[in-house]
Parts: sequence; C-alpha cells; structure tokens
Amino acid sequence: MNDTILLAHGSGGKLSHDLIEKRLLPSLTNPMLNKLDDSAIFQASGYLAFTTDSYIVSPIFFPGGDIGKLAVYGTVNDLSMNGAKPLYLSLSLIVEEGFPLSEFDHVVRSIKAAAEEAEVDIITGDTKVVNRGQVDKLFINTSGIGVIPFGIDISGANAKVGDKVILSGTIGDHGIAIMSQREGLKFSTPVESDCAPLNKLVAQMLESSSRIHCLRDPTRGGLATTLNEFARQSNMGIVIEEDKIPIKEGVKAACELLGFDPVYVANEGKLVAVVEPDDADKILAQMKQNNYGREAAIVGEVTNKHPGRVIMRTKLGHSRIVDMLSGELLPRIC
Amino acid sequence: MNDTILLAHGSGGKLSHDLIEKRLLPSLTNPMLNKLDDSAIFQASGYLAFTTDSYIVSPIFFPGGDIGKLAVYGTVNDLSMNGAKPLYLSLSLIVEEGFPLSEFDHVVRSIKAAAEEAEVDIITGDTKVVNRGQVDKLFINTSGIGVIPFGIDISGANAKVGDKVILSGTIGDHGIAIMSQREGLKFSTPVESDCAPLNKLVAQMLESSSRIHCLRDPTRGGLATTLNEFARQSNMGIVIEEDKIPIKEGVKAACELLGFDPVYVANEGKLVAVVEPDDADKILAQMKQNNYGREAAIVGEVTNKHPGRVIMRTKLGHSRIVDMLSGELLPRIC
Repeated sequence: MNDTILLAHGSGGKLSHDLIEKRLLPSLTNPMLNKLDDSAIFQASGYLAFTTDSYIVSPIFFPGGDIGKLAVYGTVNDLSMNGAKPLYLSLSLIVEEGFPLSEFDHVVRSIKAAAEEAEVDIITGDTKVVNRGQVDKLFINTSGIGVIPFGIDISGANAKVGDKVILSGTIGDHGIAIMSQREGLKFSTPVESDCAPLNKLVAQMLESSSRIHCLRDPTRGGLATTLNEFARQSNMGIVIEEDKIPIKEGVKAACELLGFDPVYVANEGKLVAVVEPDDADKILAQMKQNNYGREAAIVGEVTNKHPGRVIMRTKLGHSRIVDMLSGELLPRIC
Repeated sequence: MNDTILLAHGSGGKLSHDLIEKRLLPSLTNPMLNKLDDSAIFQASGYLAFTTDSYIVSPIFFPGGDIGKLAVYGTVNDLSMNGAKPLYLSLSLIVEEGFPLSEFDHVVRSIKAAAEEAEVDIITGDTKVVNRGQVDKLFINTSGIGVIPFGIDISGANAKVGDKVILSGTIGDHGIAIMSQREGLKFSTPVESDCAPLNKLVAQMLESSSRIHCLRDPTRGGLATTLNEFARQSNMGIVIEEDKIPIKEGVKAACELLGFDPVYVANEGKLVAVVEPDDADKILAQMKQNNYGREAAIVGEVTNKHPGRVIMRTKLGHSRIVDMLSGELLPRIC
C-alpha cells in the first residue's frame, strides 16, 4: 500500500507534507514555491492576464503527451492568446485514493519538463485526495498569470473586415490521438497529440507585426468553434477555404472512419490568428520559422456579410455554414 | 433530461456557451469576465499574492454553507493570510453528467453572494463535464490574486521568541458540521460550519498593528497542523494553553463521542496570528470588533525551547506534544 496515494496524503497533515516535500518540491523547486505559505508572492506592474483550466483528460497518458504536459501547455497557451508572456502557474491536483505513486511521479516529471520548455514557474499549489471511485484517477487544475507587453490589444472581439485568418498547422491531431488510445484503434500512421506550448510562437508573431487582432487556440470544439466565437464576439462573418486547411492523412482517415468532421476535433498545440491583411504574409513567414508553426497557412478571411456566421467554401466549390459544435463529439478530451 | 447537466455542456460548443451565457454570466457579471476571452486582463502594480485551492467537500450542501461559498471564502482567506487584499478569483467547475441544474444554479447563487460579501470579482473561468460515476457531483477550483499593501511581510517563517499566538474564535466547527451531516448525527445544539471570509478582519488587524508576523487559516489538519507549520518554518517552539482555546459545547461533545481531538478538526472561518507581544492586546481588542473575531483569544506564545515542536499545557497542568496530524481524520472536508 506504500506505493499508492492514500487518503492521508490529502489530510493536510504529516503525509501531505511528505508528499509535497519529497515528491513535488524537488521537481518544481523555485524560491516562491519553496516558501510554502498560503499564497505565493510576486512583483508585477502593468497589464496582467489571468486564466484557469481544469484538465480531466482520459486516458491520462496518451500518444504525444499526458495530463501533466497538457495542464501546463494548455494554460500557457490560454495566456498567450491574449498576447501575454506567461510567467507563473498554480498547480492543483485532485488524486484518487490508490493512484500509483509511480504514475504520480511520472506526471510530476512531465509537469516539470513542460514548465521548463515554456519557461514558466509553478509558484503555488494544492493537493486533494478523494476516496476510491469518487474521481477518475487524476484531475489537474492550472491557473496562470502573464504580463501583457505595452500596446498589445488582442481580443476575440477585434476582427475587422478584410482581415486574414491564419491557422498555425494541422487540425484534429489531439482529438484523434485521444480517441485512438481510448478505443484501441490502430492506424497505419499513428496519430500523436499536438500538445505544445505556443508562447514563443506568439512572441515571434508579435515581433513581426503589431496588427494581430484576434488569437485563440482551437481546443474543445475545434477550429469551427473558435471561428464562431470570433464571428460572434466581433459581429463579423468569416469565410474559410476547405482546401487550405492543413490536415494529416491519418487524421483525415480516422475522421472518415469515425464520422467526425475535423473542424470540430480538438487541438492542443495550434492557434488561429486574425490579422491585418497587409501583414498576413509577413506574419505567416515568421510563423513558419517556429517548430510549432511550420505548417501554418492562411485559411480564410473576415467579411461584413453574414455577421456572426462562419461559411466554408468546400473543395467542390460549394459553400456551407459551419456552426458551433452542438452535442458532444468526445467527452474528456482535455 | 433537460434539467440536468449533459456531457455536451462541457463540449466547448453550443451547450457550453449556453451554460456560460445563461447560468453563469448573469450572476457573476463584470466587465472582465464578460469579455469571454481565453484570459482576463487586469492592471496591477506592486507585490501580488497568488493562490489556488480545489474544493471536493462531500456533501456539497452542509449546515452553514455549501461548496460554492467554501470555494470563494477559502481562496479569499488564503490570500488574506499573506496580508493581501483579495481582488480577483478564477472559477473552474468539474461537474458530473446528470448533476441537477437546480443544484448547479444554487451553487452559482452561493458563489455570487460569497464574492459580493468578500468584495472580489470572478474574472475568468472554465467548466468541464465528466461522465457519470467518474467524479462525485461537483468539484470546484478557485485561484486568486490579491495585492499586498506596502510594507507588509507576513510569513509562516517570521515567528520570533516571545510572540503571542492569537486564535480568532472557536475551533472544529466546520469539521464537525460536515461529519454530522455525512453521518446523520444529531446533536442537541446543531453545529454549523464556520465558513466565512476573513479579509476584512485581517485588514482591520493590519490597521491596528504592523507587527503581525505570521497568519494562517487552520483548515485541513486543524489548529495543530498550522501551529506545527509555523514552528517548523520559523524553527521556533510554540506553547499553547488548552483552557484558552475557544470551543463550542456541541463541538466538544461531538469530539468526545467520535474520539476526535478538536485541535486536528478543520475550520473554514478562523485564523491563527503570531504577533509582537507588545501589540497583542491591541490587535485582540480590534479583532473582537469584527463579527468573525468576536471570540478571539490569546492562546499561547513562541519560545526558543523545543524548536520545531508544539507543546500544549493541558487543563490538568500537564504538558503534551501536539504533533502534526498523521493519518486522515476526515476525508473530503473542504
């Protein structure tokens, strides 16, 4: 029984302190976290971004990542989508009694590696343990704080007529990776989750142009949902070209097999940018220099026709409305 | 089925937006939250405090409160314990498929009322839905940001020899309220949870003296665990007097019946302060003016004997070591 999480690890007492001091601090160490006060203290000034996300993905280990990596990158990306430079994360774990300590350690190592890649510090945290059967293995919440450089104003409400829509790479990788793992599907080319930190890509985009109007990572609900959010928030229409949207062969095949429309499938390492038309090529060229933007493409543009609606021009030359996802494609995707 | 949470409420798509726009925004409305971007943006400067906590309490409704109230006050209190003025919270909900919408609305109303009492805004959030049986009803994470007034330096590591230990009121109320509800125990005087926001109490204490060295709310693990944390972090000893510790008759009776030591039972509206001896009476008098400090008392002092250890002088005149809680008294208490 000593190699699993016990209820007493969540007691606030001796075993809680052991878990923190022996299994969390050694990996995540930094002066702010190490103080172990009720809050962490940091100095800041200017415009700050604040975000939160709970991660409930099942299975917790999947091709291309795990829940720990996802929890760090997901929150780093949410901050980045306001143009913020992510600085600090909180980490809150809800663990099922009986969860193997070896898997706990694996997730903590993943969190450490992900935080290092994204150059953020985890400065405050919390661990709760729930009785067996009352939570499925491990849920993670990360909240994050970032600083917004002077002059940046990015919002889903800022799309203007004529703006170009840039997508940073292939769609649907994360959703199909989770689905395949969950259902034991095998494809000739295995699909891996795209989960990745996008903060440096965003920083480079902002260096190349100050006229980036909207940014968002199309996670749950996929590309279609993000574009619909922009269309609604900005009260503009958006037209996208199906044949411009990058998609991996394996993802396309899986979607056909499973009856999914890839524009609704979740991504965890992609972004959609709505940018000033004159700067679009420059931004695109810059994105292609970054490992996470290599396959970026201009996929559409903003129009004042059909405000609030997204239209796709299909490969066959037809137009169809791409609505927000209704119903649930795949629960527990992130 | 329309009166319960569906998996599609967590899809990121249409029903997610409905849930947010119809059931969360109307209650929690403020300009930062209403923007619905991936992060909320606020302006700040100076020293900020950042904290996180996940709430998994069972049952979610209990005498004196519910999980929503607890989630707001708990995080407000964690910020306050660094001397910070709480400003902003994030709110992340993990809901079980099939959870009644009426109970969801009840919790949201509670969150709204609690945020109003504590004068904090919820500026960013996230909602996930998990399949039936994979989470127990509802878990909530709140993270919080506060600003630390100039010159404040409060930490569990700051206790000095001779400092007085002040407790803000009776101990064990929250733990016994949860336990009674869970086990269907009836006492002649029903015990209610003490869950309450302590930020105004702390602000008043700080107005009366700048020499408050440590502050912490004794939640999981109770008074004993908090005092042990101070003793360890400050490398000092602490001596407390059993007969000075305020405790309700009902809590005392329940603890005797259940075999609990009240110093280990959780509180959700109490604080422990370690203060400069010369200022102790002044601070105490100030605390008694506040509704949440009416029964405050000086319960002990800091010594350089037995560093890292807490000793209690019992009513019978003996001394005993009060160690950190080992094992688990009561799972899912907060």
